[in-house]
Amino acid sequence: MKKPKEVKVSDLGEFGFIAWFSPAFLRKLPRGVVGIGDDCAVIPWRGRKKLVVTTDMLVEGVHFLKEKISAEDLGYKSLAVNLSDIAAMGAQPLYSFLSVAIPPETEISWLDKFFRGWRKLSRDTRVLLLGGDTTGSREKIVISVAVLGMADEKNIRYRSAARPGDIIAVTGTLGDSEGGLRLILSAETSAELSKSEKFLLRRHCRPRPHLEEGQFLATRPEVRAMMDVSDGIDSDLRRIMERSGCGAEVYLEKLPVSPALKNCAQKYRWPLEEIAAAGGEDYCLLVTVDPKKFIQLAANFRGRFGRELAAIGRITPEKGRLTYLKEGKPYALRKSGFDHFKK
Amino acid sequence: MKKPKEVKVSDLGEFGFIAWFSPAFLRKLPRGVVGIGDDCAVIPWRGRKKLVVTTDMLVEGVHFLKEKISAEDLGYKSLAVNLSDIAAMGAQPLYSFLSVAIPPETEISWLDKFFRGWRKLSRDTRVLLLGGDTTGSREKIVISVAVLGMADEKNIRYRSAARPGDIIAVTGTLGDSEGGLRLILSAETSAELSKSEKFLLRRHCRPRPHLEEGQFLATRPEVRAMMDVSDGIDSDLRRIMERSGCGAEVYLEKLPVSPALKNCAQKYRWPLEEIAAAGGEDYCLLVTVDPKKFIQLAANFRGRFGRELAAIGRITPEKGRLTYLKEGKPYALRKSGFDHFKK
Repeated sequence: MKKPKEVKVSDLGEFGFIAWFSPAFLRKLPRGVVGIGDDCAVIPWRGRKKLVVTTDMLVEGVHFLKEKISAEDLGYKSLAVNLSDIAAMGAQPLYSFLSVAIPPETEISWLDKFFRGWRKLSRDTRVLLLGGDTTGSREKIVISVAVLGMADEKNIRYRSAARPGDIIAVTGTLGDSEGGLRLILSAETSAELSKSEKFLLRRHCRPRPHLEEGQFLATRPEVRAMMDVSDGIDSDLRRIMERSGCGAEVYLEKLPVSPALKNCAQKYRWPLEEIAAAGGEDYCLLVTVDPKKFIQLAANFRGRFGRELAAIGRITPEKGRLTYLKEGKPYALRKSGFDHFKK
Repeated sequence: MKKPKEVKVSDLGEFGFIAWFSPAFLRKLPRGVVGIGDDCAVIPWRGRKKLVVTTDMLVEGVHFLKEKISAEDLGYKSLAVNLSDIAAMGAQPLYSFLSVAIPPETEISWLDKFFRGWRKLSRDTRVLLLGGDTTGSREKIVISVAVLGMADEKNIRYRSAARPGDIIAVTGTLGDSEGGLRLILSAETSAELSKSEKFLLRRHCRPRPHLEEGQFLATRPEVRAMMDVSDGIDSDLRRIMERSGCGAEVYLEKLPVSPALKNCAQKYRWPLEEIAAAGGEDYCLLVTVDPKKFIQLAANFRGRFGRELAAIGRITPEKGRLTYLKEGKPYALRKSGFDHFKK
């Protein structure tokens, strides 16, 4: 008799796997405590203040290639991706914890540069490093970070607050990081990098967490749902849809793209709209906004940050349905997010 | 010209490495905040309550061998080693965060058992799982855990509070976990395990965090320094000495050992006292106590837990000097702790 085939993590894929194990997390929680399902967990602190907590892991060979990213950039990015989750809650980051598993043959000079990059962003954002763990690893570097932040109860924005009719907007250009990743992974990049190429590489290697934007948006009652763009609009918007029980339509021609990404897309024949819609790791913020107040909010945002709060679509009542429109007509996106468990 | 040799992590060793990078952590911290250097970081919470935070990483091939520990035990142990740090602060654990990097070929049934072990200890200790991260890994499983707990300011015990004359004591038997590890790593173990062997294996695979003992000891003003035994008395006591600026003497014949360890040490010709002094991962607590009040404390401890609070030595004024005595004479220990960075 044949033994039944063992189901493996790769058979489920990342989202299937999360759906499989989530029930273990979704136990009844005490009042005021929020667990899995948002950018951060939320815990009562003192008075109206809440503690928000996020943790993220970066694995060599999965999230980064040691030969392709400088140690300094990697140190910076390890903290940045966690601060981006804090930004998405409208919170202020305070304390960080850094655990690193390192192979014994790692050069001290590499680590020195790693910590330099980490410290640069720590100083800029006034986040204190309070602890962590250092340990050996057989072959690969693994970085695990936890960040604690603080927010006013009334300012915290959840993924579950989107309502049909809301305008969907983003706080930065989309697809730059994916463009940078494509340059890193392609052999065809010329030795002499153009200005546009350098821009995209920097956006991939040194993402800027939108902390000030998050804190600004969190004080506006017209901002309903908020999260950070980590896996790409196409994946991330589905999470808002799922948590809010709604659908969405996205206007492809409205996705804000940088001149640098346009240049490179033309040069390398990249599918520009696909990259903007499905490319991950931009770490700007994705919000849904009361449509009656969007114009005023966008004007205030422009006044404060000198950039657009770009409207890219609208929340619809059709639960679970994400539609892309190009010049008013439905458009089928070819690619759909990134799966860490696919080989 | 020859290029100067790059210094590698393995050249420094674990403690050298920690000494090298610690300055980055030891920045001036705000009042009431404690960073690296103890079992947990400490952060003001509300009123006299403090938040304590610990994080630990477990790497396949370094901290565990997937073929040698059951998934359920590993899930249990991943949480237990973190709860042990909380116990060492005299705190109560509240919330946990679990990040796992898993190779795509990992069987779902393995993960199911891992979470079952985790949940068992979560339930027993009423710790809520609030989040984490799941991600792919190229080859090895990496587990990173963070636990948040709560303690009264006045009950928190630090490593830096030991004073010359203090009695050094432990809350459990020493060396059992190292005995279990030796059985796991040796090929000579017989197929049919003896009761003693099973006991040691269980102590290695399912360590019990001494939470109640920690909370009990933390309320006694005569208990000065406290930490958990994770790397072995020989390493851990040095940390108390370093933080408290003192020395210590340890009476080898007083180290409490289990009958099971005695049996196996006899059977396999293990160096019993070396294992008790230098074996890691027992996860009991190590305290230093005002000598005038030790007898009363030990009696209370016995009354409450039905076990000995075993006196094993004394804090001395000689900074940095750790002496072992056997029948009153100095004794040189052969082995000295475990280094994660040695190949």
